[in-house]
Amino acid sequence: MSGAFSFSLDATDGAARTGVIDTPRGDIRTPAFMPVGTAGTVKAILPEHVRATGADIVLGNTYHLMLRPTAERVAALGGLHHFMNWPRPILTDSGGFQVMSLSKLRKLNEEGVSFQSHIDGSSHMLTPERSIEIQSLLGADIQMQLDECPAIPIAEDDARASMLLSARWAQRSKDAFEARAKPGQALFGIVQGANYEGLRRESLDRLMEIGFPGYAVGGLAVGEGREEMFRVLEFTTPHMPKAKPRYLMGVGKPADIVGAVARGIDMFDCVAPTRSGRHGQAWTRAGAINIKNAVYADDPEPLDPDSACPASRDYSKAYLHHLFRAGEYLGPMLLTWHNLQYYQDLMAGMRAAIAKGRFGAFVAAFRASTGEATL
Amino acid sequence: MSGAFSFSLDATDGAARTGVIDTPRGDIRTPAFMPVGTAGTVKAILPEHVRATGADIVLGNTYHLMLRPTAERVAALGGLHHFMNWPRPILTDSGGFQVMSLSKLRKLNEEGVSFQSHIDGSSHMLTPERSIEIQSLLGADIQMQLDECPAIPIAEDDARASMLLSARWAQRSKDAFEARAKPGQALFGIVQGANYEGLRRESLDRLMEIGFPGYAVGGLAVGEGREEMFRVLEFTTPHMPKAKPRYLMGVGKPADIVGAVARGIDMFDCVAPTRSGRHGQAWTRAGAINIKNAVYADDPEPLDPDSACPASRDYSKAYLHHLFRAGEYLGPMLLTWHNLQYYQDLMAGMRAAIAKGRFGAFVAAFRASTGEATL
Repeated sequence: MSGAFSFSLDATDGAARTGVIDTPRGDIRTPAFMPVGTAGTVKAILPEHVRATGADIVLGNTYHLMLRPTAERVAALGGLHHFMNWPRPILTDSGGFQVMSLSKLRKLNEEGVSFQSHIDGSSHMLTPERSIEIQSLLGADIQMQLDECPAIPIAEDDARASMLLSARWAQRSKDAFEARAKPGQALFGIVQGANYEGLRRESLDRLMEIGFPGYAVGGLAVGEGREEMFRVLEFTTPHMPKAKPRYLMGVGKPADIVGAVARGIDMFDCVAPTRSGRHGQAWTRAGAINIKNAVYADDPEPLDPDSACPASRDYSKAYLHHLFRAGEYLGPMLLTWHNLQYYQDLMAGMRAAIAKGRFGAFVAAFRASTGEATL
Repeated sequence: MSGAFSFSLDATDGAARTGVIDTPRGDIRTPAFMPVGTAGTVKAILPEHVRATGADIVLGNTYHLMLRPTAERVAALGGLHHFMNWPRPILTDSGGFQVMSLSKLRKLNEEGVSFQSHIDGSSHMLTPERSIEIQSLLGADIQMQLDECPAIPIAEDDARASMLLSARWAQRSKDAFEARAKPGQALFGIVQGANYEGLRRESLDRLMEIGFPGYAVGGLAVGEGREEMFRVLEFTTPHMPKAKPRYLMGVGKPADIVGAVARGIDMFDCVAPTRSGRHGQAWTRAGAINIKNAVYADDPEPLDPDSACPASRDYSKAYLHHLFRAGEYLGPMLLTWHNLQYYQDLMAGMRAAIAKGRFGAFVAAFRASTGEATL
């Protein structure tokens, strides 16, 4: 931990990598999973328990925070870290993806995207400059350029036009960031280009010409399926700078993450562990289970008796089943905690395996225990 | 802590008392507040945090637990303590009060009360014997006799008939308890008689003739108002055995509790701190506030900067306000924790004041800081 933002690659095993992102607010061990704290809280868990699972960094959503409580209010209250009682690194997205998925009356042009809030219908404009202003007001350690994130499938001409717009917004985002950034903060560029190899290469080349301390792969996990996502990674990551962290946005389930690490990705975020935990799904070494299933009503065993996590170790499946059947807060609380622990244990396991040159064996064991074939 | 159930009175100050109930599962310092864990969980808080606030005992609701997950299932899973990960003392009510307030198609006679579940409409019968069987299956350390709890106002003849039924049920409850009890478990009798002094005296005499290790005052906090409740306590508690703990059921708000301690009560339970916490109300040294009020949107101060409780100390009112406005789980989680800490701090403050013979000053300070006049 120093005053600057840097990345050190400690070991590789095939395409898989392990290292450390050094920030003034703390180290981020990679491969890293970032729990999603949409509206200034990782839902249904205390921040000290997020940290206890092994999370080095959480993600905040610019779209939600700009609307409520507003970035200006968070800044006046001392910034997002202080606001949400999370002193470690925070990454914020640009807001663009959620404007397109959540807001009303969206209108996109060269300047940016205008929209109405899904909360109160109020009108807003998000430009590359405004997105960076918001992320700076929040005080995010890692900020993301504004981009357009089209669905797949998309015609190649349309995908290229969208990618070029994102590349122009990348330059504007960087200019805005450099005017505002505090020491140790970083801005990542986002590779677009749908599932077209040529467009992904062109997008990456344009971003590398602008120059960023980290590069994200965007526009995946938008319905294209796991195999297609892996295919895009296979023709994209080999060309990404080896010395910079690589972030696959919005991914994913455990098997998605293991497969993407095998293809050279370093950072992930996804609502899966928290959202599914609130709905009664628990990840275990043997795959995902739905705790609401009647088969668990009399099951005296905890989710993981060997875990260091109280949520995994100290409550029977029968109790968790009861909590969900009775609609008790404690059910989502415990499964959220358990799932985040599962994810962080998965990341720690991959980091250790890569460091020892045993990642292949790790993947084989993961595949065997979970029954996941497409890795 | 020994193998038996006992009560030692350590100090008195006027009618106020402080002491310790000794049980095989741990000591209960009195005056004691018991957080309500209706369905096998104190809502929206982890059991280790319930304990961290200073709670020595929690309450479970027989009515809810007999319907879901059922007492037989809890027993097969090792009892309620293990089920809910709370190794310390648990008191269970008899189920009677909630049968009358929550269930459908109730029918009460000498034998007991038949009813239909509010969850699935299934038919059940609760008798003194069945209530004790359920409480024993749950493994409750302190069990309560089945009683009838009429609303106030009620005609004296009706109140007497109801009280006499409760007295007969007290004897049947004791007989059932003695056939099942494990060492160190205790059964409390419940004084009824509405707001009639003669009936309260007669009820108490009948219970003392049966003989119990603790006596509850039931049938209050049913709409009669604080002053009337205090009036009933004033003609009831002076006649209760000095050497046995006295439990005022279902009470109350902080001022109710302070006033009842001043009138000789040792134990309390109430959903107020947890329920109101889930709805955005926080108790503070200056009284109750509603955190959803717009005045807190920019308030950078925590609820209590000097508290040892993270929920009270580490989050601004502005953040708590935001969490409730955004409908986030963490809002109810933090206010529940804060309110339980407030309640336990209140109890600890009263215990210390009584021990030092300064309870009058404590009450005066409480009245001055909260503006509560009717104490």
